[in-house]
Amino acid sequence: MADSAAKIQQLKALLQEAADLGSVNSVLGWDQQTYMPVEGNAARSRQSALIGRLQHERNTDPAIGHLLDELTPYAESLPYDHDDASLIRATRRAYEQNIKVPSQFMGGMYEHMGITYDLWTRARPANDFSMVRDALAKTLDLSRQLANYFPGYAHIADPLIDFSDTGMTTEKVRTIFGKLRAQLVPLVAAIAERPAIDDSFLRQHYPQADQMRLGVSIITDYGFDFGRGRQDLTHHPFMTRFSSGDVRITTRFDEYDVRDGLFSTLHETGHALYELGIDPRYDGSPLGGGTSSGVHESQSRMWENIVGRSLPFWTHYYPQIQSTFPKQLGNVPLDAFYRAINKVNPSLIRVDADEVTYNLHVMIRFNLEVELLEGTLSIDDLPEVWRARYTSDLGITPSDDKDGILQDVHWYGGIIGGQFQGYTLGNLISAQIYEAALQAHPEITREVGAGKFSTLLNWLRQNVHQHGSKFLADELIERVTGSPLQVEPLMRYLNGKFGGIYGL
Amino acid sequence: MADSAAKIQQLKALLQEAADLGSVNSVLGWDQQTYMPVEGNAARSRQSALIGRLQHERNTDPAIGHLLDELTPYAESLPYDHDDASLIRATRRAYEQNIKVPSQFMGGMYEHMGITYDLWTRARPANDFSMVRDALAKTLDLSRQLANYFPGYAHIADPLIDFSDTGMTTEKVRTIFGKLRAQLVPLVAAIAERPAIDDSFLRQHYPQADQMRLGVSIITDYGFDFGRGRQDLTHHPFMTRFSSGDVRITTRFDEYDVRDGLFSTLHETGHALYELGIDPRYDGSPLGGGTSSGVHESQSRMWENIVGRSLPFWTHYYPQIQSTFPKQLGNVPLDAFYRAINKVNPSLIRVDADEVTYNLHVMIRFNLEVELLEGTLSIDDLPEVWRARYTSDLGITPSDDKDGILQDVHWYGGIIGGQFQGYTLGNLISAQIYEAALQAHPEITREVGAGKFSTLLNWLRQNVHQHGSKFLADELIERVTGSPLQVEPLMRYLNGKFGGIYGL
Repeated sequence: MADSAAKIQQLKALLQEAADLGSVNSVLGWDQQTYMPVEGNAARSRQSALIGRLQHERNTDPAIGHLLDELTPYAESLPYDHDDASLIRATRRAYEQNIKVPSQFMGGMYEHMGITYDLWTRARPANDFSMVRDALAKTLDLSRQLANYFPGYAHIADPLIDFSDTGMTTEKVRTIFGKLRAQLVPLVAAIAERPAIDDSFLRQHYPQADQMRLGVSIITDYGFDFGRGRQDLTHHPFMTRFSSGDVRITTRFDEYDVRDGLFSTLHETGHALYELGIDPRYDGSPLGGGTSSGVHESQSRMWENIVGRSLPFWTHYYPQIQSTFPKQLGNVPLDAFYRAINKVNPSLIRVDADEVTYNLHVMIRFNLEVELLEGTLSIDDLPEVWRARYTSDLGITPSDDKDGILQDVHWYGGIIGGQFQGYTLGNLISAQIYEAALQAHPEITREVGAGKFSTLLNWLRQNVHQHGSKFLADELIERVTGSPLQVEPLMRYLNGKFGGIYGL
Repeated sequence: MADSAAKIQQLKALLQEAADLGSVNSVLGWDQQTYMPVEGNAARSRQSALIGRLQHERNTDPAIGHLLDELTPYAESLPYDHDDASLIRATRRAYEQNIKVPSQFMGGMYEHMGITYDLWTRARPANDFSMVRDALAKTLDLSRQLANYFPGYAHIADPLIDFSDTGMTTEKVRTIFGKLRAQLVPLVAAIAERPAIDDSFLRQHYPQADQMRLGVSIITDYGFDFGRGRQDLTHHPFMTRFSSGDVRITTRFDEYDVRDGLFSTLHETGHALYELGIDPRYDGSPLGGGTSSGVHESQSRMWENIVGRSLPFWTHYYPQIQSTFPKQLGNVPLDAFYRAINKVNPSLIRVDADEVTYNLHVMIRFNLEVELLEGTLSIDDLPEVWRARYTSDLGITPSDDKDGILQDVHWYGGIIGGQFQGYTLGNLISAQIYEAALQAHPEITREVGAGKFSTLLNWLRQNVHQHGSKFLADELIERVTGSPLQVEPLMRYLNGKFGGIYGL
């Protein structure tokens, strides 16, 4: 046992350096996406690639493999959820994954990420897909190479899906998405029959500084601690963690749509609350981060939508937003505002989509990723196929690439594959977990209506956040809700909420 | 020759990685000193220490030593100022210095730097030297250890001075400072006999946003390119370079003294213009940075003072600052403003000091550093001795440590020794170089009076900036001005300018 304790310490020291290099790269990435002047990009991409390669070298240090082998009997002697057993298990999983990919290849991927991101930041305002076409083709090529370091998959997308949603496969995602789609499409159709909601007052001029101040006030109520985090501006909002004491969110504001910045602030705060709630003793190890894209997204979508777009929430905050924007909202009744921020309306931009049609965006993107990786769709056909899918699935056709294929950073962040399933999995998980929270604490609804979130947050910390990556997503969902991932809670939530709003 | 070219490429590749790690650490440091939330510090310090250690490992890679040995005949076959000869020479100098210090020790120093900086940011507002006392004692201990990795010095401060002002020694600095002091003290005394200048209107309320906007406008005229740089807020202003395409300045504003932020902006811009002017082909090598503290400071002090506090400059910019602050300055004549920003008045804070007494601050600090390293002064006696020296040399006694020993970051950035001589050397060099610039282009004065700086900037780029660290400070000064470092140009400048202002 004393011997095992010493080996655990050795393992943690090795992991700490690798994790620190990861955090360093997160700082470089955060700066690149917030403050870096345009001409800094070439050197920054090279520097990120170097750190990425060094991190990968650390993560594949054979000393980690030896320690894991030596620690296996110790791990097997412990309960499954013991910290050390979980550390050894999570490290084994990450190590086996890491050693399959050469460090040099990872360095090249990191370098390509920086270059592609830079191209995207210029291609989107220029509405010019051709500026990123070659880089995206290379991204696809690299993504396929990456997948092929994991032979034996049933589908080429599987290894990439497994990176972010461990345990998920193309087949499983397709099954879940099929079930969900079968219930979503009739709901969208029923809503389309009803009179359209007026949301024009949300598209007046809302000065950015006021929007930001309001958001800060709300997320402070949520429990976001500015002594352990920040909020900055960016092109495509994200959350990033440098340590348990430094977790940051980024936001993009639209001065002519008050929804954009506000709900994106609540969304990224959901991610941040998860990271801030992880047991700080897991810092610097594979346990010290959210357990999957899906579970992460469940937290962001819960605070953005289930909480942040609910009637009780706005019953409390409506006077505050009205007094922040008296000219814009002074004469708008609460109910009209609540209906407007929940208006269901097939649109072009995923991150701005309503809760009902959002998942249709994700399904389009997921299918496109899968087809690109399979080779059944080419990069050159992508803009055209994109437009066709939006036309058939959402009933609207993007008039340009800016709001089509260039709309978000994902494929321009260096990888195609495994980038999208987590968003809809997250919606499903958020509804299922929130039902469990309400069952344990029915008073949560009333507290939300009073601008109090501590019961919900503490329950999430206790049941979800603190564990970091100790449990895989499916283990966690089962532990927290008593059943595996289901489609029904989300559909119950959507049918209830939007049935009410639209009088279905 | 083909063989040498290949070896130069190998050398550059090795140096590039080391330089990139240095730049990464600069990003971490910039963030730590601008945006990082307080609770991020522990992890950040550890991460910086790791990168510092990795950089030092790269810089001491024996492969560099072998390549340098193999390249020596090639270097000797080239003219002294050939790029390759200069690269080999500068790399040899840095390598010989680096290999004397163990990487583990450097990692420890980096870690201590972060911790001490964090303590200082809290001790200064709290006006509590005891909060940093132990860390500072450790800094002194580490600084002495560092010096002792370079045995054979005449004075223990010499190796530390040599790091930042290569070729300088305690003895040489004392000689120069002695000469300067002999001429400065009578000037200060003569000015003290004259009626005090009224500068009360500079200490009205000047909103920070307006100050910043004005500064941005002026430094844009100077030639600072925001596509290759930024300006952010910090506790203690500094300039930092991440690559030739990303050079940043930081500023601290005082809303109740318009001088602070404005002249600090011009000062850091002077540093930035130097870095931005270095031949980008030197990026990623020991040539790709300013050549010494003194020469660097000559650029910052030139743009801050010789240009930025001159009458022609304000003849052009006074209407602009008046229209920015009409209530504060609308009724103040240009001449009163010019005299006020040049008021000579012994004060407590070095960075806010006038051009005449500034060097007396530096001399106090230099002497304290030397005595601490010698062991003739202890950390515990430091606050008391500080007060005594300010009383004897400047005639004023700090009433607290906030404006005394805690006033600037230097000793709390991880090292004591070699931190201060560069400031006064810089003033000397700036005057000597500016005389040479005026001799070559007498029209510079007129252009400054029209808000045009391109002749001066281009001349500096050509003669100083582009060379990076190709020449040592004394070589550069001799090349640019035709003579070694002298005290006379600065005294001619000070006597002329302040003789005029004070009617001496």
